[in-house]
Amino acid sequence: MTLKDYLKERAAEVDAALCKYLPNATEEPGTIHSAMRYSIFAGGKRLRPVLCLAAAEACGGTLEQAMPAACAVEMLHTYSLVHDDLPSMDNDDLRRGKPTCHKIYGEGMAVLCGDALLTQSFLVLCRTPDSGRYSMREYLSELALAGSSQQLIGGQVMDLEGEGKALNKDQLDRIHLTKTAALLTTSIRLGAMSANASPEKLEALSHFGRALGLAFQVIDDILDVTQTTEVLGKTAGKDEAVQKSTYPSVIGLEASKMEALRLTTEAMDSLNPLGADADRLREIADYLLQRNY
Amino acid sequence: MTLKDYLKERAAEVDAALCKYLPNATEEPGTIHSAMRYSIFAGGKRLRPVLCLAAAEACGGTLEQAMPAACAVEMLHTYSLVHDDLPSMDNDDLRRGKPTCHKIYGEGMAVLCGDALLTQSFLVLCRTPDSGRYSMREYLSELALAGSSQQLIGGQVMDLEGEGKALNKDQLDRIHLTKTAALLTTSIRLGAMSANASPEKLEALSHFGRALGLAFQVIDDILDVTQTTEVLGKTAGKDEAVQKSTYPSVIGLEASKMEALRLTTEAMDSLNPLGADADRLREIADYLLQRNY
Repeated sequence: MTLKDYLKERAAEVDAALCKYLPNATEEPGTIHSAMRYSIFAGGKRLRPVLCLAAAEACGGTLEQAMPAACAVEMLHTYSLVHDDLPSMDNDDLRRGKPTCHKIYGEGMAVLCGDALLTQSFLVLCRTPDSGRYSMREYLSELALAGSSQQLIGGQVMDLEGEGKALNKDQLDRIHLTKTAALLTTSIRLGAMSANASPEKLEALSHFGRALGLAFQVIDDILDVTQTTEVLGKTAGKDEAVQKSTYPSVIGLEASKMEALRLTTEAMDSLNPLGADADRLREIADYLLQRNY
Repeated sequence: MTLKDYLKERAAEVDAALCKYLPNATEEPGTIHSAMRYSIFAGGKRLRPVLCLAAAEACGGTLEQAMPAACAVEMLHTYSLVHDDLPSMDNDDLRRGKPTCHKIYGEGMAVLCGDALLTQSFLVLCRTPDSGRYSMREYLSELALAGSSQQLIGGQVMDLEGEGKALNKDQLDRIHLTKTAALLTTSIRLGAMSANASPEKLEALSHFGRALGLAFQVIDDILDVTQTTEVLGKTAGKDEAVQKSTYPSVIGLEASKMEALRLTTEAMDSLNPLGADADRLREIADYLLQRNY
């Protein structure tokens, strides 16, 4: 299967599972369930769940075992976007080319919608079968830590508090390791854990996730400078407008491109212990670096 | 030990555990950890964690086994208060006699603080030991369901959407069963589960929790009408100001007092299968009904 077909097929499988794991919009109270579905199906790339599934496959697991965790990370990711977009935070009107949750449902409902997606994420995680080495305790601890005030939320706080300040590269790395790379890494780790991966493979995949997550963010920062709102599906030039430190603003555009390449190479190298089993993960990493920037 | 001493002692033990289970305010980023601690230590009665501990004791369990779940339900409860108080929801300036989280830390940080408490709640739940009949999968499913869009969050949505409308008693019951009684019941159930309670005892305690939770809400509605802001530690007369249906407004004040008594009797009766082991829970239920109204 080509990578394009693989990504398309997996994303469709994830969408079908997300649909199954979300309460129906006809269930009372309908507003919140409709808002949850709107936010989830507003056109994401499903990068995190696809990485989760690909990691499971690389470790000899099945899609079925990994699917609940794949949906859990996508719900957690979507909650964080819904809350980040709120007027009291990034104040974004557009996300993935569509009006943000609070523009459609109002601010209070968007807060509750994010809360509900976060909670649903843990409810869905419950469906992951024990895999021998790993049980629900490990899965839960992994997901809750990635979403905690020391990782995902802590990163968003540092990001907000860094606006208008001149950060250095270490501070920028710290923000993105917590805000972006932690959940990417957890997506990959949960997939591998559902496949009963050895501690050695899990360690290699964690290293991969960290490097890939940082690379992904560097590229996002580059795209914000070089692309239009139409191409991005979100407001371009936003970082500069709120005086947010980015890789291009801190180390320059060319150095940022070099950094993205260096991190992707590091990600590739960290997959060596998995041999050919990790070829699909290599293709995905390569694809992420090839985005037009 | 008198009930007063019991409540005081358990609340102090819960406070010590909450202090241990929350990240230090010195940990980066300090703002979010300081906001989490402010919200948790703004003077709650610790009703839910104390019920969790008392249920564990009634089933022959230890405080140590039940304490992580007790702290988890208090963190989840506190997150829901922090978000409910936001300007985009109930817009409350005071909670437990102190400025609400967003009045001190700003609106964006209050959203993130609630998110972080919700996530921390699951992280702390991870520390509950398996008890034979029940393992992490059951604990997680129990807590996540109570906090979901079909229980706690669904109740808040129905509550907000009911403002300015004339609800009937069934609709009011539905709101409070989901918004208040579900988490109270889960607090009690998690304590009992950590103590390896038999299915029969768990069922009896669930019935107790439901009736007690509804009784508690009826009394809260009564107090909002009959008490001052100083006594309540939160803005009195708030329900009427936002045209919220309450038990006094729907069925009248005297009928509401009768309903509170009826529900407490139902709660008491449901404890019969536990015999004298449940005496402390009976005392707590009795105490909750005796609040001045």
